[in-house]
Amino acid sequence: MTKVKVFTNILKANDALARKNKKLFNSNGVYTINLMSSPGSGKTSLLERTVDALKDELKIAVLEGDLQTANDAKRIEKYNIPVTQINTDGACHLDANMIDSALDFYNFKELDLFVIENVGNLVCPAGFDLGEDDRVVMVSTPEGDDKPVKYPIMFRKAAVLLINKIDLLPYTDFNLSKAKEDSLKIKPDLKIFEISCKTGEGLDGWFDWLREQIKKKLDS
Amino acid sequence: MTKVKVFTNILKANDALARKNKKLFNSNGVYTINLMSSPGSGKTSLLERTVDALKDELKIAVLEGDLQTANDAKRIEKYNIPVTQINTDGACHLDANMIDSALDFYNFKELDLFVIENVGNLVCPAGFDLGEDDRVVMVSTPEGDDKPVKYPIMFRKAAVLLINKIDLLPYTDFNLSKAKEDSLKIKPDLKIFEISCKTGEGLDGWFDWLREQIKKKLDS
Repeated sequence: MTKVKVFTNILKANDALARKNKKLFNSNGVYTINLMSSPGSGKTSLLERTVDALKDELKIAVLEGDLQTANDAKRIEKYNIPVTQINTDGACHLDANMIDSALDFYNFKELDLFVIENVGNLVCPAGFDLGEDDRVVMVSTPEGDDKPVKYPIMFRKAAVLLINKIDLLPYTDFNLSKAKEDSLKIKPDLKIFEISCKTGEGLDGWFDWLREQIKKKLDS
Repeated sequence: MTKVKVFTNILKANDALARKNKKLFNSNGVYTINLMSSPGSGKTSLLERTVDALKDELKIAVLEGDLQTANDAKRIEKYNIPVTQINTDGACHLDANMIDSALDFYNFKELDLFVIENVGNLVCPAGFDLGEDDRVVMVSTPEGDDKPVKYPIMFRKAAVLLINKIDLLPYTDFNLSKAKEDSLKIKPDLKIFEISCKTGEGLDGWFDWLREQIKKKLDS
């Protein structure tokens, strides 16, 4: 089974580089997140809201991953924080090597929070450790409440689930209780926030959670 | 460059099987579609609407692809047409081999239209020919109008773009003109339908287009 072996080797190489990245983040006390979702769930909008709310109290930097365009990095640049765009040129996920190759751009000694926004894809990014402290997965209400049962691997490895676009709940058939119950069956200690990056609803809980993780990391 | 070679070999093997599938579809005069989108754009809802509207005039069968669950196949089963569910068990796309292994379930001599619903993923499925006549890509308005520029490969190979959930246009920032212009820059002869699988708006145009393709296939 040559194919399987090749893939195992790719993952092994990835894990080695992820450990290297993690070491860098840890030695500088930088709390690092790998943010993942389907295309268009609102990852960049979440980052805009988060950076805008926390940039005066925390040193934040962002790494954007996309197949094409620097559109997302441009949206973050407006907030005058360090941001880089990786274009995967067709590849469906970020891997630890891509992260490694972009790290020289940042001064980790000065950072508190480093957010990696992965390629919009609810499948492939789940397989690749980037060296992050925590994985955050986002779903949005118009996508439907069946995403946890249909894409369980993504939810199994996440620390946080953000249910975005709750402002659209009245116009969709999304069942909040079902989505939460199904997610907790897959990952019983999953932390869940119901948010709207459009109206700002529910974001304070997410900001507090982030502050808490950063404090824990600094104290560790 | 071993990795590239392995991938090239995988694609070559896929293309050979795709040609085999295509031969089967062609010899039976069955018009075949590969339906692709992000998770939760509304692929299965489209199939429910399409089967419900056309099942008395056309013989339709569906093949569902998902990582886990038979939820989508169950939704289609209600319409009493042939349907199978492929579970990829973590794999991010359908390939021609998976299709080949499911084909015995169908009696192609009796069919007019065969629809393959791919795994919800706007990246990986674009790389794998399944033997289809046409690729149909769907985006939904809450995903944002930037999907064509950010995921161009998917749009470059599509015959049709369905812009779904236009009932949610008043509650989103989706710019219809921008999405259409950007898509047509990537694929100038892309056929575009604005639809709502919830309200039924715009679906008649899609049904007519399907009838036309099936007629062309039978006449060829």
